[in-house]
Amino acid sequence: MKHGLQSEDSILRRIIGMAKVPAHRLTEGSIALGIGDDAALFRPKPGREAILTCDWFLEGTHFLRDKHPPQAVGWKCLARAVSDVAAMGGAPRCFLLSLALPKSHIGEWLDRFLKGLRQASRAFECALAGGDTTKREEILINVTVVGDARAGRAVLRSGARPGDAIYVSGRLGEAECGLRTLKRRRGPLNDTDPLTKKHLYPEPRLALGQWLAVKRMATAMMDLSDGLSSDLSRLCRASSVGARVHLDRIPMPNLSVTDLKRGIDPVRLALHGGDDYELLFTVPRRSMSRIPKSFQGVRLTPIGEITRNHEVQLVREDGSGQLLVPGGWDPFR
Amino acid sequence: MKHGLQSEDSILRRIIGMAKVPAHRLTEGSIALGIGDDAALFRPKPGREAILTCDWFLEGTHFLRDKHPPQAVGWKCLARAVSDVAAMGGAPRCFLLSLALPKSHIGEWLDRFLKGLRQASRAFECALAGGDTTKREEILINVTVVGDARAGRAVLRSGARPGDAIYVSGRLGEAECGLRTLKRRRGPLNDTDPLTKKHLYPEPRLALGQWLAVKRMATAMMDLSDGLSSDLSRLCRASSVGARVHLDRIPMPNLSVTDLKRGIDPVRLALHGGDDYELLFTVPRRSMSRIPKSFQGVRLTPIGEITRNHEVQLVREDGSGQLLVPGGWDPFR
Repeated sequence: MKHGLQSEDSILRRIIGMAKVPAHRLTEGSIALGIGDDAALFRPKPGREAILTCDWFLEGTHFLRDKHPPQAVGWKCLARAVSDVAAMGGAPRCFLLSLALPKSHIGEWLDRFLKGLRQASRAFECALAGGDTTKREEILINVTVVGDARAGRAVLRSGARPGDAIYVSGRLGEAECGLRTLKRRRGPLNDTDPLTKKHLYPEPRLALGQWLAVKRMATAMMDLSDGLSSDLSRLCRASSVGARVHLDRIPMPNLSVTDLKRGIDPVRLALHGGDDYELLFTVPRRSMSRIPKSFQGVRLTPIGEITRNHEVQLVREDGSGQLLVPGGWDPFR
Repeated sequence: MKHGLQSEDSILRRIIGMAKVPAHRLTEGSIALGIGDDAALFRPKPGREAILTCDWFLEGTHFLRDKHPPQAVGWKCLARAVSDVAAMGGAPRCFLLSLALPKSHIGEWLDRFLKGLRQASRAFECALAGGDTTKREEILINVTVVGDARAGRAVLRSGARPGDAIYVSGRLGEAECGLRTLKRRRGPLNDTDPLTKKHLYPEPRLALGQWLAVKRMATAMMDLSDGLSSDLSRLCRASSVGARVHLDRIPMPNLSVTDLKRGIDPVRLALHGGDDYELLFTVPRRSMSRIPKSFQGVRLTPIGEITRNHEVQLVREDGSGQLLVPGGWDPFR
């Protein structure tokens, strides 16, 4: 056999061996055939429909080879695609992994990457179902996640109506602050810092998203990946509405004294910081009393209301208003 | 709005506008929600299961920026992922497009790319359902195709049994020959050359794959993407069998006199050439009489038989045999 230890087939076997969830999961309902064929088979349970989403995770654009631990790269590439399923109110079922690696990274780096990926796969109950591998000088990752939801119950971006209250989960801007700490660091990584941890190991709000969908509480929902200012604009455009957001109600990041001394502006972070993977959702005013202050330890905060005009307004503490211009992450800007 | 003409959202709108199939298709059975949300929804018809597959299509690895017309890049990135669905005997339904482009390529290059992609999308009846875009110095593409098949009827790689006849569709090695012509060319592209055309615009064998699956004719099936020697080894490993292939029965490429004069070896091309996207399938001996000589103009050729031992043997015209060593495309070799 000309296929050495380093050939594509052998790398595929290592990925299968390390990353797949226990075999019994594969027969538990959804995946009819796992890895090793031309394609995977997926059978949603009766009355449910499939949710499909894919995400780039590219060295230099979404993570830095010399800053991000491989384990965090493995966790996060799956977590951010799973977050799109959470934002529909669905449950993740399986994923496809497309991986391009330099030869120098198919040893220890790949092992640690797969360790993080396996942890995420177990945490989200989302099994590896297939993928594609190739060689490349840069580390390129693309993840497709397949989930499902009760047919007709997925929560779209387009359902917000004037008068609805606008909610966010968690605190905004913390992941961006964690990224800055990570970029500054020279010595070993301090992964006990909660903001760095939020950047490296985001937790998609799956339980919250499913609860809101099942209870038919949210009229519109999406996840905050590019920053509140950019993502709220998208939700409004999809729903053909506007929004009024009150600055003093936005849950600001818990910055350390060191960060504040560095002059980091919590307001800018909360408005424009990306990578939080919190949920942004709208609720009819009459249902607000049914939304708890926190859900499974994650705070839920009403930050404003949907309006009829097509503008996104930011209201300051003194009552003055200004347009909230999208200033979040946009690779083409 | 800070979002200029070149921002991610505007590129997304162009992709949506150019590449999606007419809206009526989206309601015709399978896709419950198209582009513009966190994820797409897909509802297989009752009694059918979803087929999932993804493929890299990377500049420098799978195509060359200065040699491959953007239209062919658009066609081929979808065609090769659709071919995996054909190889399961399924029908493609929708796809997710992940696209990373340099700023220099979001003008005319993107328009022509989307033109080819739209042609493929219509030809294969496979609608754009979502995706992800980002900026990058190199052109990176990843395509996920979702298809479906009658539940339990998809044809796997693992069903080949000793005594089964081994078939291939079409002629082998032609696409590889076309690639060589393309690489040599200095002047304008001659896309009337059938071998160049086969490399640039491959036709997944959808009708054949579905016919073999519906009639329960094939015991195992896969598409030939990396070359017969590599792919037949994979099919045999998946089925825990071996194979004996007769060299004089393999349908060789139709080489031009010029190519033959250049010393291009048709046997090497047919055994190891990649990118043909023909089907490789096995049929119980008793069913051979039901396999026609050609199907919708594509020849079907029995080239050997499945054996009990785990070796892939190549039998020469004089009756002598040798191991057929995988020599097809492997990015990690």
